[in-house]
Formats: sequence, C-alpha cells, structure tokens
Amino acid sequence: MATTLFAIPTRGPGLTEFTPEIAAWVAGTGLAEGLLTLFVRHTSCSLAIQENADPDVRRDLLAFFRRLAPPADDPAQAGITHRSEGPDDMPAHIKAALLPVSLSIPVIRGRLALGTWQGVYLFEHRAQPHRREVAAHLA
Amino acid sequence: MATTLFAIPTRGPGLTEFTPEIAAWVAGTGLAEGLLTLFVRHTSCSLAIQENADPDVRRDLLAFFRRLAPPADDPAQAGITHRSEGPDDMPAHIKAALLPVSLSIPVIRGRLALGTWQGVYLFEHRAQPHRREVAAHLA
Amino acid sequence: MATTLFAIPTRGPGLTEFTPEIAAWVAGTGLAEGLLTLFVRHTSCSLAIQENADPDVRRDLLAFFRRLAPPADDPAQAGITHRSEGPDDMPAHIKAALLPVSLSIPVIRGRLALGTWQGVYLFEHRAQPHRREVAAHLA
Repeated sequence: MATTLFAIPTRGPGLTEFTPEIAAWVAGTGLAEGLLTLFVRHTSCSLAIQENADPDVRRDLLAFFRRLAPPADDPAQAGITHRSEGPDDMPAHIKAALLPVSLSIPVIRGRLALGTWQGVYLFEHRAQPHRREVAAHLA
Repeated sequence: MATTLFAIPTRGPGLTEFTPEIAAWVAGTGLAEGLLTLFVRHTSCSLAIQENADPDVRRDLLAFFRRLAPPADDPAQAGITHRSEGPDDMPAHIKAALLPVSLSIPVIRGRLALGTWQGVYLFEHRAQPHRREVAAHLA
Repeated sequence: MATTLFAIPTRGPGLTEFTPEIAAWVAGTGLAEGLLTLFVRHTSCSLAIQENADPDVRRDLLAFFRRLAPPADDPAQAGITHRSEGPDDMPAHIKAALLPVSLSIPVIRGRLALGTWQGVYLFEHRAQPHRREVAAHLA
C-alpha cells in the first residue's frame, strides 16, 4: 500500500492534466495489480476524466459548466446568497458538487486501466490561480 | 478490513452532515493507512462533500438543484413521466444520477485526508423525511 | 484480489443494466468481505446506479440529460465547437463529465451492498451502438 499527495498549480478556470505524474508514481511503486484512488481536498475544484486529444473538448466543457452555474453577478444567474469570496465562489461549490471529488482506477499488469483517450484532470472552478492538493492511495 | 452501515435520519430536502460519525468509526478501527469508501443504498438521495462553514452554501446548493430538476408539478418542469410516488419522485432520481452514490477518502496517519473545509453529507432529495443507509468499507 | 473486464454492447442512447453479470463475477470469486470498483474506459458513456423497477425512470433520465446537453445541431444548444464525430460528440463528453466514471460498492457477507431498488447500468451517450468496456477490481 502507498499514499502520496499531488500538488497541482492551476491558472484559473479550466482543466489541468496530471496523468503523467500519476502514471509515474504508480509505476514507481512496482505494483502489478491494484486500485488507485484519487481524492481532491477542496470544495471549489474537481477531478475529471476526459478526452486528451482535441483541446476544444476542454474549452467546450468549461463553457458548458459556466452556463450551467454562471457567476453570481451574471444576469443569467439566480438565487445565489453565498458570495463571501466573490461572484465565482458559490458557482465553484456547485460545480464541485456536480463533478467527482474522488475517482478510482484499476491497475492491471502494472498499468492504469485508462482507455485510449482518457486523461486525468484537475478542474479548477475559481477565477484565480490556486495550488491544489490531490491525495492518492494505491493498494 | 472493516465494514459498517451508517443510518442517517433526514428531515426532507437538504444536506445532513455525518463527518463526526465517520471519523469516530475510522479512529475506532485503529487503522493508520488505508481507504474509506462510502456507498449510499438508495436511488433518491446522494452523498456530497461540501464546505462545512457557511450554511448559505448548503441553502444555495439545494436551490440550485431544485432549479435544475424542479418537481414534476412545477411550471418550469418538462417531460417527466414517472410520478409513482409524487412530483418529487423523478427529480430525486435525476439528482441521484448527477451526485455521488459512492465516495472514497484516503486515510493517512490515522486520519481522513479531508481538506480543512470539507464535510461529508447525506443529500436528501425527497420531500419527506427518510432514514437513509450508507454502507462503509475500510481497508 | 481479482480484476476483470466487462464488455457491454449498447444500442445507442440509454441505460443498459449489467447488475447480474457483476453479481455473478463477485459470487464466483468467493470473496466474503471487500470492495468492488467499476471503471468505464471511455469518455462518451458513463456508469449509473438507478432504480431498476419502472422503465419510465430510465426514459425520463435519458430525456433530462438530452435537455441538459442537447445535440450540437439542436436550436436549444449553444456554444459547442467540438463536432469531430458529429452533433452527439461533445454532448456525450459533457454527460461523461457529469456522470460517474468510477463506482465502488462494498461486498458484505458475500453480496454487493446494493439497496433493494438499485441496479448498475452502463449509460450510453452516443447516437450509435457501441461495445463498451468496464474494468472491475475486487479486493
């Protein structure tokens, strides 16, 4: 069994891939069969597994979630009370509820069982850059 | 390895925190490193990890999901056929599909790797109070 | 510990149950207490746990997600750039972000801890039939 923390710097809203960092850590443990679990330690960003080919996919995803939960000062937004940290505060909590806080990926013959097009991402929901922590467990 | 069932009484729509019950159970097992998995045994409530500071966050979340999937008798609602148990029946299934049915949290040095502001909640989607069961696994 | 791959043929948009296949595999391993994890190896379909009684629930779910993320050629749709594989391409990625890519279910006394009404489904988001793979891990 192994645990670690990944630190992921973000640049504001959007998806930051960290598949290579995860794969390197898993390979380094030498585990042949097992389960990797990732857990994001925040309430205003998420994990995501998405296509890692066309960058338009990430742009469209970001735009979709912005329309679904617009900033509190957007005319399309309604009914947001909590604005302690600004208009992007509560929409970030909403997205963090909708998108995965934990993800588990089997390890088979020493490799993550990701599909051909799957990449693992940290999805930042806040307007400002942040340093995010993802706890990882492998057994 | 340990398993248990948490029974969580709810008071109708909203978020009920049960982080202390989980933390006490994990501490009681004496496990230093491992993985906690929670699994909700229903199709009309969910798990959620959310900010446990400002209660406005939970109110805004509840309101957001009510707008996203309004009751079947709400003028804003469209296209709901299944109403066996009333107008809150199908919207509860929709929210149960959108929000987590299972969550996994690493245990590091005897403690859940939750971030500073993260609490674990049972999110009730039905109009009436219920007694909900969450299966827990620790290994 | 055991791992396997489930192959699930789909017939276009909708939910395909594979609870019996999972339960048979878990029973075949003889494991009494543990954790089953499922992981879908694609970015345009999802896992779902839903009511397995009234088929209207699955129809209403399908209709809800079609309204939430309509095809790129639907007048209700806005702001989709990525259409490499047609108008159902990007909405499938959006639904794959919103719905579970992995699910973990405790095994207690040799049985999955599913609730009475819970079935495990593969949720196809593309317009055409596909053959989908779900990696499974049991320990």
